[in-house]
Amino acid sequence: MYIILTYDVEVKRVSKVRKCLKKYLTWTQNSVFEGEITEGKLHKCLSEIEKMVSKKEDSIYIYKINTPKFIKKEIIGKTKNFDEMFL
Amino acid sequence: MYIILTYDVEVKRVSKVRKCLKKYLTWTQNSVFEGEITEGKLHKCLSEIEKMVSKKEDSIYIYKINTPKFIKKEIIGKTKNFDEMFL
Repeated sequence: MYIILTYDVEVKRVSKVRKCLKKYLTWTQNSVFEGEITEGKLHKCLSEIEKMVSKKEDSIYIYKINTPKFIKKEIIGKTKNFDEMFL
Repeated sequence: MYIILTYDVEVKRVSKVRKCLKKYLTWTQNSVFEGEITEGKLHKCLSEIEKMVSKKEDSIYIYKINTPKFIKKEIIGKTKNFDEMFL
């Protein structure tokens, strides 16, 4: 399935969360990761993330789309690339 | 159609962009707006936004999903609500 994951995480936790997400998805915008992932891998990813975040302060949305053909992406402005960003 | 709009906009422009987006979509997370919208209204919204942003510095992603039934949303932590936020 295709996943768009958006997050609003306190500064003191965010780089740890990003480091984890980078193992599973592509970092495409400051608060957005996306990509194809299996149900099993997503489950593993989210259980790691749940241990890192504060459910009271942080917010993570996971949008699941069954197949990429159901989604079209349009971009205004820059396409951000964080691959070379070191965490 | 259902839209998820994510953005990474310079501070000096971001509140103007949010004010515009709030006319068309729901502000659900710090850098995320989403909701049902017609093609016509989306076109109007994006043409207003394009005049506000810098295509060199800012980044806006628009994920279009034909029907809401193709998308499932899961939340970890807080559901953010910005309705009462004044811009």
